Amino acid sequence: MTIDPLQRFYGVIPAGGVGTRLWPLSRAAAPKFLHDLTGSGSTLIRATFERLTPLAGGRMLVVTGRAHRQAVLAQLPELGDDQLVLESEPKDSAAAIGLAAAILHRRDPDTIMGSFAADQVIGPVDVFQDAVREAIHTAATGKIVTIGIRPTLPSTGFGYIRQGEPLAVPGAPSATDVAEFVEKPSEEVARSYVASGDYLWNAGMFVAPVALMLEHLGRTEPQLHAGLLEIAAAWDSPDRDDVVDRIWPTLPKTAIDYAVAEPAAAAGDVAMIPGTFTWDDVGDFAAIGRLNPATESSHITVLGEGARVYADQASGVVVSDTKRVIALIGIDNVVIVDTPDALLVTTQEHAQSVKKAVESLKASGDVDVL
Amino acid sequence: MTIDPLQRFYGVIPAGGVGTRLWPLSRAAAPKFLHDLTGSGSTLIRATFERLTPLAGGRMLVVTGRAHRQAVLAQLPELGDDQLVLESEPKDSAAAIGLAAAILHRRDPDTIMGSFAADQVIGPVDVFQDAVREAIHTAATGKIVTIGIRPTLPSTGFGYIRQGEPLAVPGAPSATDVAEFVEKPSEEVARSYVASGDYLWNAGMFVAPVALMLEHLGRTEPQLHAGLLEIAAAWDSPDRDDVVDRIWPTLPKTAIDYAVAEPAAAAGDVAMIPGTFTWDDVGDFAAIGRLNPATESSHITVLGEGARVYADQASGVVVSDTKRVIALIGIDNVVIVDTPDALLVTTQEHAQSVKKAVESLKASGDVDVL
Repeated sequence: MTIDPLQRFYGVIPAGGVGTRLWPLSRAAAPKFLHDLTGSGSTLIRATFERLTPLAGGRMLVVTGRAHRQAVLAQLPELGDDQLVLESEPKDSAAAIGLAAAILHRRDPDTIMGSFAADQVIGPVDVFQDAVREAIHTAATGKIVTIGIRPTLPSTGFGYIRQGEPLAVPGAPSATDVAEFVEKPSEEVARSYVASGDYLWNAGMFVAPVALMLEHLGRTEPQLHAGLLEIAAAWDSPDRDDVVDRIWPTLPKTAIDYAVAEPAAAAGDVAMIPGTFTWDDVGDFAAIGRLNPATESSHITVLGEGARVYADQASGVVVSDTKRVIALIGIDNVVIVDTPDALLVTTQEHAQSVKKAVESLKASGDVDVL
Repeated sequence: MTIDPLQRFYGVIPAGGVGTRLWPLSRAAAPKFLHDLTGSGSTLIRATFERLTPLAGGRMLVVTGRAHRQAVLAQLPELGDDQLVLESEPKDSAAAIGLAAAILHRRDPDTIMGSFAADQVIGPVDVFQDAVREAIHTAATGKIVTIGIRPTLPSTGFGYIRQGEPLAVPGAPSATDVAEFVEKPSEEVARSYVASGDYLWNAGMFVAPVALMLEHLGRTEPQLHAGLLEIAAAWDSPDRDDVVDRIWPTLPKTAIDYAVAEPAAAAGDVAMIPGTFTWDDVGDFAAIGRLNPATESSHITVLGEGARVYADQASGVVVSDTKRVIALIGIDNVVIVDTPDALLVTTQEHAQSVKKAVESLKASGDVDVL
């Protein structure tokens, strides 16, 4: 008797990444996924969890840094001890997602995992969930399935996925083969991608049988694969901490795209479901402006409880993490982020330059605010 | 035997005015004159005091609000009890300067007072002092003497003084008659004033025999004059507080220009010394930029101890009253004023609009930060 693929599904939420371009709101101690960046009342990780719950039920695993244990549990009190994987140090996405795959494989080798980053904004939720269901059905045929996003502009900030031929998968009418993954393009190339209709944004969403994920990882990154299996074998035992402390620091740092997705695509093992939902990785403060439209009367988007903002001849975004009065006069498309120990003032056009500021502050020793 | 006019001189420093356009740095509890706005290491009131000391010696009177007693004494520890005149409530410049005149007249009717606001920036100091010496010599001939400022641009923010015929005063070769005082002009009129060479800025500086000041005040504002004389009679007695509490609240509010300078000029009693020093009333944050040139390397003027400012593709002024890190990216001619409870972000072109912001905050009940 074949198990319904949907019953094999387990949600995995990698919650890493500081979100440097969202400094000083997002920072090492309070990364992007712990913030409500849409004014919805939910943090991004909580919204991600709730988006997956109708698909996974309680079958959910969160991978995050040790420092965020308490904050994540405060956001997701439903999580049991066996559902939180804590990294002692960041090791990039191949190790994080690979460890989740290895642990889930030990617990049930038939599991289909779906990995969705904790810091993305998606809607409408039911369209997303339909795409994930198609991805699960496709994964059950022995594929690593990515959900691509139909591009709305020629972004140079994302990688792209070239769509291949349609696949005939029961329960997944829109599934296609993946011809290739391509790196972040130049603006000219991005324009041609969007015009062709064959390229979708790579949003880093993967749905796959854990066994297949591990198989590809073993081929491309044998040392990483062996280390993760050894950790997974000790995970649900008293030896966990000893084994983790010994092996995790030695693991290579690499991205899941290089370690699994691209080589698997070349081997013909990757499929895609085109996502027609809206998707935003909230990469910078310009995104905050997009995701939180200003009211007609004020032209200013204000995020933050108790913010007191006076604006005159101004437009843009004010993120207030204090109760200070903020008076803003005569600047358009401004971005102001007001936190107790650091203040950012820029414009939406310069939102990408925030990363450079953070690097300079690090170089100059102002690490207390990073 | 005639006393040397310079021996009759007594410096008066009216220290009032919140400096609304310098909010949130300058505010009711910490008005403009208590700040170092030039990066000199001295507050404006201290610099004013030191500028007058070579002329007046210890003969100096400060008129300020009761709330500022402690702060003023901290800045001017040299002041004796009889040198600080505290107003129980603000009553505009005619009452403040008139009370100083009345008190000084009671103590010595031959006194020549020189009134210079506590919140102005002047240099070079010796050029200013030469002008004041000429003004004292001219005042000794029975004139109310104003020091006009040669305009450097057609400002619409100041009143002007039309120069009359030269006067032949020993010790005051540049003294002239004053034809009239004129109100703040339109830009077109200001241009014609500057082009003519006959108009100087009215900087509100008056040097005059106290008896002549009181005589004109008595003619124009008899109620104010009578009240001030009654207060002055009780000033150096145990009745001071009772009399002040009874009379001061009833006094009319008016400016010294209307009450004395303009009618005295019409009566032919006002002379002028043209000041060739630079003068700035630090009216707004654009002035802070002018008075504190940015370094070539940063394009940003930073005022404030312990400020940590990171600037990229930006220019302007940052006034920091906190120790926060401030990152500023991609805005030119910006003005940022960072205080513990209020933040201002604007540009130098909009510096005058700060007043409107303060009025709006007052109207909306955010008076805690004003």
